[in-house]
Amino acid sequence: MSAALELAQALIRRPSITPQDGGCQALLGQRLAALGFHVEPMRFGAVDNLWARRGTDGPVLVFAGHTDVVPVGDADAWCCDPFAAEIRDGQLYGRGAADMKGALAAMVVACERFLAACPQPAGSIGFLLTSDEEGDAVDGTVRVMETLTARGESIDCCLIGEPSSDQRLGDTLRIGRRGSLSARLRVHGVQGHVAYPEKALNPIHAFAPTLAALCSEDWGGDDPAFPPVSFQISNIHAGTGAGNVIPGELLVDCNFRFPPQPGAAALKARFEGIVARGGARCDVHWTLGGEPFITRGGRLLEATQAALGEVLGVLPTLSTGGGTSDGRFIAPSGAEVIELGLRNASIHKVDECTPVAEIEQLAAVYEAVLHRLLGKR
Amino acid sequence: MSAALELAQALIRRPSITPQDGGCQALLGQRLAALGFHVEPMRFGAVDNLWARRGTDGPVLVFAGHTDVVPVGDADAWCCDPFAAEIRDGQLYGRGAADMKGALAAMVVACERFLAACPQPAGSIGFLLTSDEEGDAVDGTVRVMETLTARGESIDCCLIGEPSSDQRLGDTLRIGRRGSLSARLRVHGVQGHVAYPEKALNPIHAFAPTLAALCSEDWGGDDPAFPPVSFQISNIHAGTGAGNVIPGELLVDCNFRFPPQPGAAALKARFEGIVARGGARCDVHWTLGGEPFITRGGRLLEATQAALGEVLGVLPTLSTGGGTSDGRFIAPSGAEVIELGLRNASIHKVDECTPVAEIEQLAAVYEAVLHRLLGKR
Repeated sequence: MSAALELAQALIRRPSITPQDGGCQALLGQRLAALGFHVEPMRFGAVDNLWARRGTDGPVLVFAGHTDVVPVGDADAWCCDPFAAEIRDGQLYGRGAADMKGALAAMVVACERFLAACPQPAGSIGFLLTSDEEGDAVDGTVRVMETLTARGESIDCCLIGEPSSDQRLGDTLRIGRRGSLSARLRVHGVQGHVAYPEKALNPIHAFAPTLAALCSEDWGGDDPAFPPVSFQISNIHAGTGAGNVIPGELLVDCNFRFPPQPGAAALKARFEGIVARGGARCDVHWTLGGEPFITRGGRLLEATQAALGEVLGVLPTLSTGGGTSDGRFIAPSGAEVIELGLRNASIHKVDECTPVAEIEQLAAVYEAVLHRLLGKR
Repeated sequence: MSAALELAQALIRRPSITPQDGGCQALLGQRLAALGFHVEPMRFGAVDNLWARRGTDGPVLVFAGHTDVVPVGDADAWCCDPFAAEIRDGQLYGRGAADMKGALAAMVVACERFLAACPQPAGSIGFLLTSDEEGDAVDGTVRVMETLTARGESIDCCLIGEPSSDQRLGDTLRIGRRGSLSARLRVHGVQGHVAYPEKALNPIHAFAPTLAALCSEDWGGDDPAFPPVSFQISNIHAGTGAGNVIPGELLVDCNFRFPPQPGAAALKARFEGIVARGGARCDVHWTLGGEPFITRGGRLLEATQAALGEVLGVLPTLSTGGGTSDGRFIAPSGAEVIELGLRNASIHKVDECTPVAEIEQLAAVYEAVLHRLLGKR
């Protein structure tokens, strides 16, 4: 049996629904310690994180990922126990198989093979693991990065094992992500009886033209490396349930996904201008979930592209699509961040799975990246 | 102590939160039976109703009202027990004091005095009582009217004891009410992730221009006897609570209060035209809560106006304002419907109360109406 498959199964069999780690980091830390890594657990709040490093020189190549998984959903709807890591028809089933315990296993096995062949690499290898990527992401990667930055420890290149692949393994590399900016609008009215509208102020009516203006706005974003700005209202609520009461307040949750241009500040200003011109009395509370980032070129990107061509004969599409990832916490430090992992068709769904063979293939790609970046002392 | 006050207290001390009657109708029925009324309890579902009639000839003058009350709200915030019927500084406190146990007591005492003076009235007197006016109003007055209509029993004049008075007793007569028409809109979208709007369809965005159009529409209604059409959105809901999910459905509850012109059918057609032009995929479910009604003149209106002038020296304003009342179920039978009751400033609130003296004054007005309509055989 393949070493990478065996490790992936061992990780899946340690249930770790976010923000639980389930003992995954201890297992990975043992394997890394045996390779000469200095292993440093970093627990923040209820979240287990792990920082491991082998070597003191630069460049520093870090493998980053998460041991937590999303909930299984309807467990009875699965074809098999989501934590049994069963293999059926060449597929490894289990929560986390593709997102991203398979990739974590491939990373560790790649290091084991690379260091066996090259015990004195031309630089350092790091592992940055968290159990808080699928959840709040408050006590995870962001806190580890703060700790590293505070002590002057920097990362040159970071390869994240998020499931970037689409139709076949390695066909897509994520070289960046849009930022995420959320607004919670609270529109103030005056509650009353529907038969006496002159004694009340309906916040839905007051805000309706502004809502229409926000929804029809072209928010821009024409960087060819990014999808355009996405503006979506995720939640809207007003009303007591009674059909004869004018509500006193309207709540509207909005979210922007945005490239570096126009950026968060410009979007905020434009949004607030539209809201102010609408004239409804309201408050806006902003939350910046993450700034956008992009790697437009660099040694990690070149090494990863070359490794994919060499091992899989694939020329990957460079993408900045999808949601956010923990790359948003790592890129601001100046690191070159690339995401390469398994196929994402089944992630977060019932019957999450990955072809068994692709775990081993991914390990071979990661190993080739290590050779290209750190193998030539 | 005044007989009307004593009866009002006895009623308040029988807690009857809608749709409970709490024994009020039995007490009132006893009093009416003692006057020669034929008393007929009519229970439909969980609702107690009472139909009582004295006499077989026309015209038939009916006193109508409800024994149920709205909940007390925060009982600790009351100055006294809401069911103790305490008198403080000339005010009778209690849930239902003004809406409308005080008026029910005044009606019964008025009949007792009238029949003592005029044992052979020129027509019949009826009482139509329900314990389902403050709630669903499904098994109350509407069912009693169906029963009376089915057996060919008709009402010529109906005096409802709803608290119509504003600044002083008798200053306002309700001669009609707007109708109530509700629409529940269900806008269909496709749920998805905010980062992939191209794979989803946001029903909030799809409906926003239509919402603005509905809110800015002038719905008309220029009958000088009525307030204009009121259109209000009472509830709007979409979203799972998560900030990164595009909702799959938007729910919007709307309510019209409308005079006979333009009427329900025209409003429905106009509303559905605006919604159809907006293009969002949606269903509308309509509920007609009540048709509008109005008494533009008639013997009951004349008698009541004259009685108010004679007893209180008041020239009442004729109004069709406010919410719906059970008059909507009685007027369609062809009855002339008027509402006259106590002052409404404290109804449905903490510390509901009515001046003690006004219960007795209202009894005197009702008695004068009886004399004018049925006293001259």
